[in-house]
Amino acid sequence: MAILYADDPADAAAWAVAIRALAPGVELRFWPDSGPADEVDFAIVGGKAPGDLRGFANLRAIQSTWAGVNHLLADSNLPFDRPLARMVDQGLTVSMTEFIVLHVLDSARQGPRLRAAQRARQWLDLDPVAPGTIVVAVLGLGTLGADAATRLVALGFSVRGWSRSRKEIAGIESFAGSDGFKACLSGAHILVCLLPLTDDTRGILGAAAFAPLARGAVLIQAARGAHLVEADLLAALQSGQLSRAVLDVFAPEPLPVDHVFWRHPQVTVTPHVAAITRPGTGAADIVENYRRALAGETLINQVDRAKGY
Amino acid sequence: MAILYADDPADAAAWAVAIRALAPGVELRFWPDSGPADEVDFAIVGGKAPGDLRGFANLRAIQSTWAGVNHLLADSNLPFDRPLARMVDQGLTVSMTEFIVLHVLDSARQGPRLRAAQRARQWLDLDPVAPGTIVVAVLGLGTLGADAATRLVALGFSVRGWSRSRKEIAGIESFAGSDGFKACLSGAHILVCLLPLTDDTRGILGAAAFAPLARGAVLIQAARGAHLVEADLLAALQSGQLSRAVLDVFAPEPLPVDHVFWRHPQVTVTPHVAAITRPGTGAADIVENYRRALAGETLINQVDRAKGY
Repeated sequence: MAILYADDPADAAAWAVAIRALAPGVELRFWPDSGPADEVDFAIVGGKAPGDLRGFANLRAIQSTWAGVNHLLADSNLPFDRPLARMVDQGLTVSMTEFIVLHVLDSARQGPRLRAAQRARQWLDLDPVAPGTIVVAVLGLGTLGADAATRLVALGFSVRGWSRSRKEIAGIESFAGSDGFKACLSGAHILVCLLPLTDDTRGILGAAAFAPLARGAVLIQAARGAHLVEADLLAALQSGQLSRAVLDVFAPEPLPVDHVFWRHPQVTVTPHVAAITRPGTGAADIVENYRRALAGETLINQVDRAKGY
Repeated sequence: MAILYADDPADAAAWAVAIRALAPGVELRFWPDSGPADEVDFAIVGGKAPGDLRGFANLRAIQSTWAGVNHLLADSNLPFDRPLARMVDQGLTVSMTEFIVLHVLDSARQGPRLRAAQRARQWLDLDPVAPGTIVVAVLGLGTLGADAATRLVALGFSVRGWSRSRKEIAGIESFAGSDGFKACLSGAHILVCLLPLTDDTRGILGAAAFAPLARGAVLIQAARGAHLVEADLLAALQSGQLSRAVLDVFAPEPLPVDHVFWRHPQVTVTPHVAAITRPGTGAADIVENYRRALAGETLINQVDRAKGY
């Protein structure tokens, strides 16, 4: 019985420390040193399987260290008939909510305009806008979206949310389905994307999403690069339908050095830093899911392959 | 019986609308058209009395529309023997807390470094720091400081506070007095100033405040310009004891166009936009204080002239 760590080698030591602190007796192996194949009963993966993991006959389950697993569902090196768990650890949620709150506030408080004014040594006469008059639409109301939305409500923003099924979250106007999509976006000043990437959501950040927003709206995109139709974003920025975009995720990453986003005056590029899983907080889910996998129980954040998340 | 509005003429119409909505019968006059002097029993002032207000024999009280009143306590155009009220309206508190949260998050999430990386088209490999490991010291735990500190606790930061007398605020380590000052600052990563400006606090943001902080700490100053010893700030930025300062207030304002802060790479200048009183939310205090003044009751946020706030 052994856990095979097949995630980023740079993070192996940190995960090993965190897992052993919670489960000192567990045997950890590190790809490609997997030992006898029939002893591996649990695997940890991240961005991409480093090789063929289909040969482990006794593999009970696969644990991703990432919240988004669309890439793993399409990874031919992984067996498709074993339970797969996403990781939505507390540290990741806190980090994502911080990122969203930071950029919503920066937009609401006209950060880019103030930074430009400083460069021009110009003392702007600018009144703060009351947050209650600013409508934020959050696409995706899973663990991440619900936490960010709730925090924005607490800061006084008018918050709407859209998800596959209607959610009941205090203070948030909830929408679902394709009818609800346009209603959620209608007149919104800030659009936050925290959706999983699925066949249904690929390219969802396009002209049809931007058109219903208030003119001059801001896009904050921290989900997956493939949600965004880049040409539609550039057109919306050009026309003034959007005034700004904050993009943390791209297809591909790193964003190529010659990409227009880097130098676009209305685009803020951050290098996929909104949220990452931290071993210190994430190891608890791994240890518990290992126990559940051996016991044949449903995993924490087990992926529904039909839904895609 | 009449209220004399002697604040900024540009805001007169908005205040009149907001006050009349709550108290339709009240007589409002607008400086310099004060009408018969003995009919004026209440005055509204802001940044500076526009002329001599000592001749109104029946003036019962003076209402400031500002949260900070140090300038009014020293204004020889105002009678010193009438009750004076500060205004700490809900809109102002919300606005200030937004500003503080925004700049604490921007510092914690390395906003300036990320913006520089974008200009250089550089994809940084940057892990978010857990907010619990970041110590924020808030100077001043009045309405504004307490609200900001509470919100920072909710976001997971380790928050300390310092004030004239020790305060009990959930989740915040509270300090008071000159011994407590250094203890509060010791090892803090972010220093937030929301103090009133008094003889005791003038120049408090100087070398003695910066020295106990963690090396490379960030100053966020949203109180009054005269709290800051500019030369000490520049020396601390130069030495690396401070890595950055976010300054919203200056002495004088507007910040002169040739001032070194405008172009300093480690200084963020904002044009006193952190918090302003909004007539829509502030008028309720004015109407209630007018009633109290006529009834001889203590005003909401009545200033203690000995304390200076």
